[in-house]
Amino acid sequence: MAKTLRVGLAQINTTVGDFEGNVRKVLEYVERARDLGVDIVSFPELTVTGYPPEDLLLRAGFVKDNVDALNATVEGCRGITAVVGFVDRDKETHGPISGPDVSGVSIYNAAAVIHDGRLAHVYHKQRLPNYGVFDEARYFEPDQQFPVYIVAGVAVGVNICEDIWYPGYPVETQARAGARVIVNINGSPYHAGKRRFREDMLADRARAYDVYVCYTNQVGGQDELVFDGGSMVLSPSGELIARAAMFEEELLVVDLPVEGGRRKEEGGKGVERFVLSHAPFLPNKLAIEPRIAPELEDEAEVYAALVLGTRDYLHKTGFRKALIALSGGIDSSLVAAIAVDALGAENVYGVSMPSRYSSEGSIKDAKELGENLGIEFRIIRIEPAHAAFEEMLALAFEATQPGVAEENIQARIRGNVVLSLSNKFGWIVLTTGNKSELATGYATLAGDLVGGFAVIRDVPKTLVYKLSRYRNTLGERPVIPQAVLTKPPSAELRPGQLDQDTLPPYDMLDGILQAYVENDRSVQEIAEMGYDYATVARVAQMVDRNEYKRRQAPPGVKITPKAFGRDRRLPMASRYKAW
Amino acid sequence: MAKTLRVGLAQINTTVGDFEGNVRKVLEYVERARDLGVDIVSFPELTVTGYPPEDLLLRAGFVKDNVDALNATVEGCRGITAVVGFVDRDKETHGPISGPDVSGVSIYNAAAVIHDGRLAHVYHKQRLPNYGVFDEARYFEPDQQFPVYIVAGVAVGVNICEDIWYPGYPVETQARAGARVIVNINGSPYHAGKRRFREDMLADRARAYDVYVCYTNQVGGQDELVFDGGSMVLSPSGELIARAAMFEEELLVVDLPVEGGRRKEEGGKGVERFVLSHAPFLPNKLAIEPRIAPELEDEAEVYAALVLGTRDYLHKTGFRKALIALSGGIDSSLVAAIAVDALGAENVYGVSMPSRYSSEGSIKDAKELGENLGIEFRIIRIEPAHAAFEEMLALAFEATQPGVAEENIQARIRGNVVLSLSNKFGWIVLTTGNKSELATGYATLAGDLVGGFAVIRDVPKTLVYKLSRYRNTLGERPVIPQAVLTKPPSAELRPGQLDQDTLPPYDMLDGILQAYVENDRSVQEIAEMGYDYATVARVAQMVDRNEYKRRQAPPGVKITPKAFGRDRRLPMASRYKAW
Repeated sequence: MAKTLRVGLAQINTTVGDFEGNVRKVLEYVERARDLGVDIVSFPELTVTGYPPEDLLLRAGFVKDNVDALNATVEGCRGITAVVGFVDRDKETHGPISGPDVSGVSIYNAAAVIHDGRLAHVYHKQRLPNYGVFDEARYFEPDQQFPVYIVAGVAVGVNICEDIWYPGYPVETQARAGARVIVNINGSPYHAGKRRFREDMLADRARAYDVYVCYTNQVGGQDELVFDGGSMVLSPSGELIARAAMFEEELLVVDLPVEGGRRKEEGGKGVERFVLSHAPFLPNKLAIEPRIAPELEDEAEVYAALVLGTRDYLHKTGFRKALIALSGGIDSSLVAAIAVDALGAENVYGVSMPSRYSSEGSIKDAKELGENLGIEFRIIRIEPAHAAFEEMLALAFEATQPGVAEENIQARIRGNVVLSLSNKFGWIVLTTGNKSELATGYATLAGDLVGGFAVIRDVPKTLVYKLSRYRNTLGERPVIPQAVLTKPPSAELRPGQLDQDTLPPYDMLDGILQAYVENDRSVQEIAEMGYDYATVARVAQMVDRNEYKRRQAPPGVKITPKAFGRDRRLPMASRYKAW
Repeated sequence: MAKTLRVGLAQINTTVGDFEGNVRKVLEYVERARDLGVDIVSFPELTVTGYPPEDLLLRAGFVKDNVDALNATVEGCRGITAVVGFVDRDKETHGPISGPDVSGVSIYNAAAVIHDGRLAHVYHKQRLPNYGVFDEARYFEPDQQFPVYIVAGVAVGVNICEDIWYPGYPVETQARAGARVIVNINGSPYHAGKRRFREDMLADRARAYDVYVCYTNQVGGQDELVFDGGSMVLSPSGELIARAAMFEEELLVVDLPVEGGRRKEEGGKGVERFVLSHAPFLPNKLAIEPRIAPELEDEAEVYAALVLGTRDYLHKTGFRKALIALSGGIDSSLVAAIAVDALGAENVYGVSMPSRYSSEGSIKDAKELGENLGIEFRIIRIEPAHAAFEEMLALAFEATQPGVAEENIQARIRGNVVLSLSNKFGWIVLTTGNKSELATGYATLAGDLVGGFAVIRDVPKTLVYKLSRYRNTLGERPVIPQAVLTKPPSAELRPGQLDQDTLPPYDMLDGILQAYVENDRSVQEIAEMGYDYATVARVAQMVDRNEYKRRQAPPGVKITPKAFGRDRRLPMASRYKAW
């Protein structure tokens, strides 16, 4: 006879360090799940602390507060089984956990298995990612136990994130020990296309070990990372039977028909069984039809990631209102549209700061965009300061040829204006540079690079165009003026200047950058992909030389497999020549 | 009968990615060592690549180039045994080394043991530091082998850096296997006082395992790290018998009288013996008197670290000349003195940028400092731009009270001036903020925070005073004017402004910051040290809220146990309240 296990996947948006808020949210979702007769509800990785807490983990007080918050959660979880992420610690100090100078206790990335108001067991993560944006070996000890929990008569294995990413232990061990359902809790950061990769990987695990896989992912932005949710349940045949939305909180509830008959149970080191309940708290409930949230198209997915990442960074750091320098170009237009979608038009301010070299078209395009978006818009001409700097620097610059110094002065005057407005009114400045510019250093330090959050710093220029066209398909009429989409890109810092005077055409540049930056290909290999060797070498050199500039750029949303920042840690002082 | 082993510790300054230059330097030192009859010469950790190479290690081409460079080194090392650090790789691809998305081969932090022009053996580092500034688990696989090499008839164990930091394997295993001498190669970054810690730790190992310890450390600056050299040799009784200088390249040569008679040799898993030579290449040479370089006083040590770190960052990134905004305050005065000592007076430019609020004393002090240091000095008054910004922002700021916005405008005008001079003349801007300011956010983004290198960003204000007084004891007369040392610190951005209007007194502030930032103490614990709770809470809040500002500050020399930056990785969006 088949048994039915009702699982709930609580895809919530936590905030790092907000123990009170995180616990409150967990208890709300526990109540909703219990009301729906859910047998076991799971929350994302490190639910209680928020993820990733980084070096807060090195503070004994932070770890203690997290344990207190977990205890408050345990007491609130009655009439249900709940899987809640937290930081576990060894009771006794036993030497340094992080090198010769720091002493402390061992800590674990853990899942509390709570049953009816008591802590039934604690599972410790086994595979600790220490690549890309992840530094988990810096903090956590790995463990090796393979517990199986009997929940409402069904054998369930719990594990955490990377634990399911590879074939083999612990999933295989838990399945061999009799688990019919694997509950995996996650904090898996977004990049474009990763959802499909995850779905395929989880289907492989489900099929290989003949188990249901219930994958609960976090949702929300945390500094440069966006967690996209998209929690899902796969059947033992690898079929997707339920999926939550991306970029939204959701409680996904699914009935799993688990075939009767106990499975053969292999023992082994670390294998242990915990009987929590032989029957549901709420028997004989009505069946629930599983929901499969529709997939998002490519541009819609990235756009939603940028909106959520921007909203959460601002709200979680205490900002409600944002200011954007509108040049009339496509980058600032897209950033303004994202800001309006993230914060509401009433919380977004645009400022156009024309210089003597700005075209009338640019001012008009900026104004029109502001009107289309319904944001407050102001023009501040920078000529007075521009002339003043010329006067102040006349003697020092005597007998030199005008060049990049004279151009950058204008960008920095604008930087000063927007930061002054920010200081005065408490608006955060949204920086508008894209990934192609940041890669090549085509940006001015203390100029267009300044601000609090660089919304599209991981978006290549060619994708900026695609996202802008996508945004124009939403709503009744296009918000980004047609001229912005068609005119050739220009910084307008000298008469007749065009981006393509300095950079290769953007479709070529972005192809080279993807290979060099995201895929770590050599110049030779990229040339063999069909690009001109000299162009590739020039681009690689620009990328390498501008590491120092990127270090001083504001943070922004990661949307590619490898963003600049902690995803890609390169020395500034390096004589390595890839070309 | 005692045998004498002549060891050479080649404390060299490598550059990351400069394979050609690094190999050339190794071969020069090999030749010098061979001429002195050295039996075994050792070089720092990752000699060939420079240390730390960070994510360059994820590029297959970089690892290949490093192997080619090692091969060139091997061929050049004739008539001697040499221990050279490099990156070893497995010959065959066997799955991902750094997570699900990156495929590659396993790589090792390795020591090549070269004997007479052939690669005799390769040792792999066993203990991989992954705390503080270290991310070695991101790149390397650990290994477990315990080779012992017979060099000129003496049993020698080779290991790398952290391998000797802890009691137990591999040092103990190598000693039990018969090693009488341990050659440990290092890239150990400096912080104030670390030398003594190392010396005590190495003496413990020498005594515990009855071995000579030959510790070779790198020297030189690499991005934010300074390696201080101070290579040393300790006898089996734990006595210091030789020490190289700090902050300078040196070949330290020492004769080790190793007692006769083979020691009991325990075997075990991974233990292996390699016979390289039973007698020296150069027998019957004259004895060499070991040198013990004198210790540096506290301030002299930190000052030397700042000079070397600044010089190497600039030279390794291709700069020869630097510009400093001289306010007449103590921070910029100290930075200018360090720059002169690092680069030579002829390569340092000072600019004073008085505003309407600058005191005549400040201008006079800046000018006097410039004259004392013998640097080119210029005054650019910022009133024209200041007035222009007031005009441009008059409408936007209408009916608001003057405050921090109006103050910061001036700092950003200065930022624009120095970066314009940098763009025009190719000088790097040295930023002058100290650690106390960076911690509390008492600095202006795109203002005094801009530049290419922030020399004293890890130096607390109280130490800035001590270092300035120390610098004034060098040379024939003080270079920093007495008034600079005695007047109360002020940003001079409004009439009568003093730092202490905003911040607690610096001696109190620095005490709190050390406990909170460097030692991760809680507010409660710091209050119990004798500080006022409300003051501690206010400081902790300032530190936490200004994480975003520090992310955008230029790099600078690490001199404390925990510098801001990759030593201390905290989220910007965090609601954790330590108070």
